Amino acid sequence: MSKEITSREKDYAQWYNDLVLKAGMAEYSAVRGCMIIKPYGYALWEKMRDQLDFMFKETGHSNAYFPLFIPKSFLSREAAHVEGFAKECAVVTHYRLKNDPDGKGIIVDPEARLEEELIVRPTSETIIWNTYKNWIQSYRDLPLLINQWANVVRWEMRTRLFLRTSEFLWQEGHTAHATAGEAIEETKRMLNVYATFAEEWMAMPVIKGVKSANERFAGAVDTYTIEALMQDGKALQSGTSHFLGQNFAKAFDVKFSDKDNKLDYVWATSWGASTRLIGALIMAHSDDDGLVLPPKLAPIQVVIVPVYKTGEEKEKLDKKIAEITENLKALKISYKYDDDDKRRPGWKFAEYEMKGVPVRMVLGTRDLENNVIEVTRRDTRKKESVSLDGIANVIKDLLDDIQSSIFNKAKEFRDTHITRVDSWKEFETLLDTKTGFLSAHWDGTTETEEKIKELTKATIRCIPLDNEHEQGKCILTGKPSTQRVLFARAY
Amino acid sequence: MSKEITSREKDYAQWYNDLVLKAGMAEYSAVRGCMIIKPYGYALWEKMRDQLDFMFKETGHSNAYFPLFIPKSFLSREAAHVEGFAKECAVVTHYRLKNDPDGKGIIVDPEARLEEELIVRPTSETIIWNTYKNWIQSYRDLPLLINQWANVVRWEMRTRLFLRTSEFLWQEGHTAHATAGEAIEETKRMLNVYATFAEEWMAMPVIKGVKSANERFAGAVDTYTIEALMQDGKALQSGTSHFLGQNFAKAFDVKFSDKDNKLDYVWATSWGASTRLIGALIMAHSDDDGLVLPPKLAPIQVVIVPVYKTGEEKEKLDKKIAEITENLKALKISYKYDDDDKRRPGWKFAEYEMKGVPVRMVLGTRDLENNVIEVTRRDTRKKESVSLDGIANVIKDLLDDIQSSIFNKAKEFRDTHITRVDSWKEFETLLDTKTGFLSAHWDGTTETEEKIKELTKATIRCIPLDNEHEQGKCILTGKPSTQRVLFARAY
Repeated sequence: MSKEITSREKDYAQWYNDLVLKAGMAEYSAVRGCMIIKPYGYALWEKMRDQLDFMFKETGHSNAYFPLFIPKSFLSREAAHVEGFAKECAVVTHYRLKNDPDGKGIIVDPEARLEEELIVRPTSETIIWNTYKNWIQSYRDLPLLINQWANVVRWEMRTRLFLRTSEFLWQEGHTAHATAGEAIEETKRMLNVYATFAEEWMAMPVIKGVKSANERFAGAVDTYTIEALMQDGKALQSGTSHFLGQNFAKAFDVKFSDKDNKLDYVWATSWGASTRLIGALIMAHSDDDGLVLPPKLAPIQVVIVPVYKTGEEKEKLDKKIAEITENLKALKISYKYDDDDKRRPGWKFAEYEMKGVPVRMVLGTRDLENNVIEVTRRDTRKKESVSLDGIANVIKDLLDDIQSSIFNKAKEFRDTHITRVDSWKEFETLLDTKTGFLSAHWDGTTETEEKIKELTKATIRCIPLDNEHEQGKCILTGKPSTQRVLFARAY
Repeated sequence: MSKEITSREKDYAQWYNDLVLKAGMAEYSAVRGCMIIKPYGYALWEKMRDQLDFMFKETGHSNAYFPLFIPKSFLSREAAHVEGFAKECAVVTHYRLKNDPDGKGIIVDPEARLEEELIVRPTSETIIWNTYKNWIQSYRDLPLLINQWANVVRWEMRTRLFLRTSEFLWQEGHTAHATAGEAIEETKRMLNVYATFAEEWMAMPVIKGVKSANERFAGAVDTYTIEALMQDGKALQSGTSHFLGQNFAKAFDVKFSDKDNKLDYVWATSWGASTRLIGALIMAHSDDDGLVLPPKLAPIQVVIVPVYKTGEEKEKLDKKIAEITENLKALKISYKYDDDDKRRPGWKFAEYEMKGVPVRMVLGTRDLENNVIEVTRRDTRKKESVSLDGIANVIKDLLDDIQSSIFNKAKEFRDTHITRVDSWKEFETLLDTKTGFLSAHWDGTTETEEKIKELTKATIRCIPLDNEHEQGKCILTGKPSTQRVLFARAY
């Protein structure tokens, strides 16, 4: 089965697509640009969603649900927002179908035209801020800390499973605050939640930074981002947190009276992460034989395969394995005992490698006699014969080790792919050879940023939060610069 | 605050609407017919969803996600389905907006018209069965047991919060089986899951039955239902499970080869429950002072309010309450300690009554001296002074008692509102006076059912599964009948 995946070296994009399909994560649907998230992919998303949701609630947020549809006029209310979001959208114009009078199926009823078209939400700032107007009167109503889990639609011409699809699942936080300072603090808090989630759960190192004006969210004062590096040396934006200033409060007239009864506009943030993270997770760790999943998010952490010849042998294995799984369960380790006799062990090994199950345990009759079990870790393929005494605790430690090992491996790759560059020639060459992040001086103008993008397809991924100020010259124009920024080609 | 709710006696519909708004459950949005589920309402939905999801997984189902959009032509593929579902739908006709050349905001770009219109899913049978075609080849691929949590849209002209809105949240299970028998077994299994959930979690007694042909799901061979009774004597359909026969398999050409390599169409089921359940839950138990929630689903099970004069007193109360909450936490009881000093205790009492928090605990300085605490249950308002020794266990038992008490109360109401009726005159009179379910003979024809609906607005809610066969005469036509069915006016 693994033979059917294109290797990363041969064609990275094809490898990714093959992997998503073969591992049963997702597939394209009959609707152009929309994907079907298959049960295994969705189980992974549930684990990610549950952990993020837990972290949002720990930081004081509540979930709510706002309408799928946004009146067209709402999108025009915030000037920058409409420029960025009102273009590639699904537009609902009618609310009824009827039988074709010619008897050819059904047609749109021309009499059921909406007075005002509805847009399928590409993001929900406008409908939410229109609502907040009624929820916020006084400083006592603040902060308002709300998150929504939802589907959104942004019409895409060129799509890739998880990475860019017309419909995707995400969460969007929308908070309201009494002061700019509190809103900025919230923006950074949620960036840190994303960074912690990416590093500790996805085992994916990220760089925290601020976007340049050009890459900023439409309607934001500042956009913070976490940027990860994929194995092909391209960057992937993995979560963004926006300080919106008073832009949406002004657009939707949301004022509050402070303790001194003075009226002011509310300060806002929004922040989101999507099913795109699944694409990032796949590309960060996987190899030519299939997925490599971090144990903390793997839908199945351990698979157990019995090897036997007779029913009598099988019974003995079953008995031992029942003991083992009992202990795994007590340690909250998720497992699958695959004793399906329609498939041979070799087929199963390949299948669970493809699916990225972190640990495989194989118990044969000889193993049982020797009181050992064969344990193979997915990330390094290291195989060991381990004593059955206290095996559950050994597996627990092994899962922890895999979690940190794949993080360290990704971090090492990332760290060795940040290159300080001071000449334009080197800049251009490295983008095609070594790839990764190029740390270079930039004169701070949108014109230069766009020119660089035009010449190299590289964009400014972020101005790192921990940047050191340094005098230098812009990599393209030679104009003076006070800091390096990170360039990369990106997903 | 409670003063502002209309009483049930005065205007039941207005009482419901007031309650949903005042308890902070939901509100209407700027988009006609679409609701906003507010944090408290959504917290309740999360509890319901999580429990249902657990029960679906326990019965072997996996979650997946299918596209929001359905190509228009798909709806026509199953003849009965198109009649029932293709009418009041949101239709996407365009995929782009552009700036109005006259400078007046944005307009739909006439050049971005879709070749085939997309329908926002009113239910997903068609897109899912179009997918299953690729997932099912052999009996080894069966059964296929999949569930989806999603938003759906059915354009509604007259809407009511939770009960009937254009967009709502739901789950839809879609399963495929090798035999009719297995599919029917699955249909009944999921009906039982819904019934167990309604009775044991929502504390809402339900009658399990089969729908008449007239009330059947569009495309189903048989529709099973659970029917609950609201306090105004109207029925509310609370979950349906459909045996779809081979209708969708034939419409989408989904065949499998059995063990003997013989090709046959697959057998199907689908089953769903929605945010409508929140409306049912509210109407089943609540009173003129607010919500009454079953402890197993209440977002907050216990609220603790301190009563004090000085900061010194408050400190002593805090210390004791920290002890209590520690013990509540150990018993997995969710609580809120409301020591907000901007609100008086009386305001808080009314507020948590409105929100239906099952138990209120009030600790005053005098109580503390006497080693007691005042405990009030929301359902009966019974107030008691209880010893602080072992208080957490007392609360745990009390929550259990409330759960069964509100179920018993609702069951007694329901049981006394099922009336055997044998004359048309009595039938008509009772619908206006006693209300509830009327158990009456029916001649089994759609004509009679429709005539009764026309005359009385009552519909056949179901043919109960535990029905006893009995010779009789149709309540309207006098024609012979072999069993009674349940009529009621319904939501």
